[in-house]
Amino acid sequence: MKKEFLYATLAGNLADKIKSGVLKPGERVPSVRMLSTEHGISINTAKRVFLELEARSLIEAKPQSGYFVSPQHYLKLPLPLASRPAPVAKSTGPDELINEVYSNMGRKDLTLFSIGIPSGHLLPQAKLKKEVVLATRSLKDGGTGFEPLQGNATLRRMVAARSLAWKGQLKENDVITTSGCMNALALCLMALTRPGDTLALESPCYPGILQIAMGLGLKVLEVATHPVTGISIEALRKLLPKITVCLLVPNFNTALGYCMPDDNKKEVTRLLARHGIPLIEDDTYGDLHFSAERPGCCKSYDTDGNVLWCGSVSKTLAPGYRVGWVAPGKYKEQLLKLKLVHTISSTALVHEAVGNFLLTGGYDKHLRQLRQTLQENYRQYAAAIADYFPAGTKISQPRGGLALWVELSKQTDTTELYHDALKQHISIAPGRMFTLQNQFQNCLRLCLGLPWTEELRFKIKQLGGLAKMIAG
Amino acid sequence: MKKEFLYATLAGNLADKIKSGVLKPGERVPSVRMLSTEHGISINTAKRVFLELEARSLIEAKPQSGYFVSPQHYLKLPLPLASRPAPVAKSTGPDELINEVYSNMGRKDLTLFSIGIPSGHLLPQAKLKKEVVLATRSLKDGGTGFEPLQGNATLRRMVAARSLAWKGQLKENDVITTSGCMNALALCLMALTRPGDTLALESPCYPGILQIAMGLGLKVLEVATHPVTGISIEALRKLLPKITVCLLVPNFNTALGYCMPDDNKKEVTRLLARHGIPLIEDDTYGDLHFSAERPGCCKSYDTDGNVLWCGSVSKTLAPGYRVGWVAPGKYKEQLLKLKLVHTISSTALVHEAVGNFLLTGGYDKHLRQLRQTLQENYRQYAAAIADYFPAGTKISQPRGGLALWVELSKQTDTTELYHDALKQHISIAPGRMFTLQNQFQNCLRLCLGLPWTEELRFKIKQLGGLAKMIAG
Repeated sequence: MKKEFLYATLAGNLADKIKSGVLKPGERVPSVRMLSTEHGISINTAKRVFLELEARSLIEAKPQSGYFVSPQHYLKLPLPLASRPAPVAKSTGPDELINEVYSNMGRKDLTLFSIGIPSGHLLPQAKLKKEVVLATRSLKDGGTGFEPLQGNATLRRMVAARSLAWKGQLKENDVITTSGCMNALALCLMALTRPGDTLALESPCYPGILQIAMGLGLKVLEVATHPVTGISIEALRKLLPKITVCLLVPNFNTALGYCMPDDNKKEVTRLLARHGIPLIEDDTYGDLHFSAERPGCCKSYDTDGNVLWCGSVSKTLAPGYRVGWVAPGKYKEQLLKLKLVHTISSTALVHEAVGNFLLTGGYDKHLRQLRQTLQENYRQYAAAIADYFPAGTKISQPRGGLALWVELSKQTDTTELYHDALKQHISIAPGRMFTLQNQFQNCLRLCLGLPWTEELRFKIKQLGGLAKMIAG
Repeated sequence: MKKEFLYATLAGNLADKIKSGVLKPGERVPSVRMLSTEHGISINTAKRVFLELEARSLIEAKPQSGYFVSPQHYLKLPLPLASRPAPVAKSTGPDELINEVYSNMGRKDLTLFSIGIPSGHLLPQAKLKKEVVLATRSLKDGGTGFEPLQGNATLRRMVAARSLAWKGQLKENDVITTSGCMNALALCLMALTRPGDTLALESPCYPGILQIAMGLGLKVLEVATHPVTGISIEALRKLLPKITVCLLVPNFNTALGYCMPDDNKKEVTRLLARHGIPLIEDDTYGDLHFSAERPGCCKSYDTDGNVLWCGSVSKTLAPGYRVGWVAPGKYKEQLLKLKLVHTISSTALVHEAVGNFLLTGGYDKHLRQLRQTLQENYRQYAAAIADYFPAGTKISQPRGGLALWVELSKQTDTTELYHDALKQHISIAPGRMFTLQNQFQNCLRLCLGLPWTEELRFKIKQLGGLAKMIAG
């Protein structure tokens, strides 16, 4: 049997034992060495089995003790279905709903499950403040002047240095800073498209991307997407002749939270390059992996500058700072030109502050903590949903990021649920926001970035109660 | 004789006496009362004569002493010609030249006459730093979170409050904050146009606006513009049927520095409203008036929400903060929607800091000082140009703002001058950047925002020497 199959089979077998209860929560699983000896496989293959199970939150490592089965009450809920959008490009969508839900942003009387950012309690506020104050002193003219067009040098150097973690090999000069990741995505789309062009996306898709596409007069082609492996390359391949540009969020997409397998990343990158279709990669959640290793990117497999890789600290450090970047490959000149006319410069102070925080502030330590919190939140949310939501509810199995996708019974309208929940001071993101087609009316997204409390559990209970009432 | 004529005639007579040397620099001019008695006019009409002469920098008020003739060595240089662009819409322009010149931004080895922002030395850096530090403490979550979509409340309240100075009567709720004024203009253009639409502009025009128009696929109609009164309403009227949207910088336009007369502002505002053509008004220089009074805006005459009034502190406080705003009249919903998808939020920290500085930090005191410096710089620049530039050089008579427009002899190519000057570590903005047509090849713009020194005078001397060499 080929190595690939061996590894997948072994991981599958162990997963089945865990899911069926043969191996119970808290129990120790066989060691790497035991697995290697027992099945006659290399230590590396055995390790890969465990990393896979860990990534799927089925087991967890305890320092100096080995791997144990995770507490996994929530795993009794099945996965949502793979999406099957029509292979038709659309250019209008649920604008009003999106605007309505986003207008809740900043409201202090609501539990904001709807906005996909980490709560301020989870952020290193004191350290960031210190960096801002230092930046007012270290920057020429106290940060009142423009930055160089390409952006803050320290920040660009650190983004490049950190690309080693995902085999990116970026250099400082490959990176342009932007005012957050959405600004990077908007600049990329403006550089690569004209009205009437067609943009291919995963489905479900982040509503902001749908809106920007509509704003630029693009036709949007939503592509079938699997809740564990991401976009269907088969489906994408069939649509290639229609596509001008493709935008993917392969790591912890804000709807389903999947991590596209490395092989798929490689395949999709090569496929698009071969057909001369630029790939915009939104990797803004890439550092929020629940498994031990930072996943790769499509950019890791980009050999000819066809991938425009975008990121930010909006999901990890400070949404309100507006600090992002893009490594635009061979489209650098176009991007610089657009940056000049649309924003001229980013806010020098916060870009310097974030650059220095990445350099010396313990970003990785903060990330470890944040990831742990988000993963623990996922478990808590999932357990609460299992307890309080209607029978038949399905949930995603995010492998990182901030989003939990919930699928209710076919007849449950989550836009109705949104309105009902709002009356109880709860804001959710109804599934219909994430598509231009007639899909996901029975889905919703919850943000995992709120600090877990008994009150939050109660809010989920309330939500489940409302969902039961709507379902009848 | 009608009042209008009387006032203009009297101002003209006095101006002639000053220019011809009948009244000498430093001499007292007749008092308001004397003028009123002598010509049998009202005190108000007499005052208007003096305000007009003051605005033209011919006289200046000394506290408790009356008006005196300004030191005005530079006035011996004539005004540039009024522009006469072809009545043809264009959609391509001097992209490479613009990018080249802007790429000098931030270079420390150059004297940057080319970038239209005030030097850091002229800005209240210490006070701003203090406000930033306070903002890290006062904002929820230390400013790491998103702002409400419409933007910082204090900033919006202050922008509205300050509108009284130009009879704007804005309310807090009329204002949306943006990441600088260019961001406001870009959002307005995106809201109001589709590719192929026609945008009418003054000529010469700020290169950033030309580039954004080209980026959005707009056709650009440059309209004849007078160096003292601004856009020709006559010319604009003839082109109306072609125009989708109009963008004007009526106060201290960064090329010619004119202040469009109130009557013209009123007329153009009503004309465009009558024809259903939205007017985007860039008033980012409005607070930098050299005369005593803050000029009005087109928005002051907007009765039905047809004017989208944009501003920022980028020319007065901190270019690198990216703090701007727009009062978009009846287009508010569209603007909010675009802001959401393109930037989500501005950088909370600096918007709070600027809001509080406007509230308590002595903005008006700072502005008085800055205006005085800029006006004094204008005098110094003009005198140096009169001394060192080729005979026949013409210069603008800016009534505020940061720009001095210089017109050389027909055969002098200022793009050539730009390249020559760069070798001597001087960067200028060649006239060709300010148009999509074949105009202004013999013009250049100098930024008045550099601190005046003997070295700066020497740089102007060098520039003049190079211009003489090119002219042959």
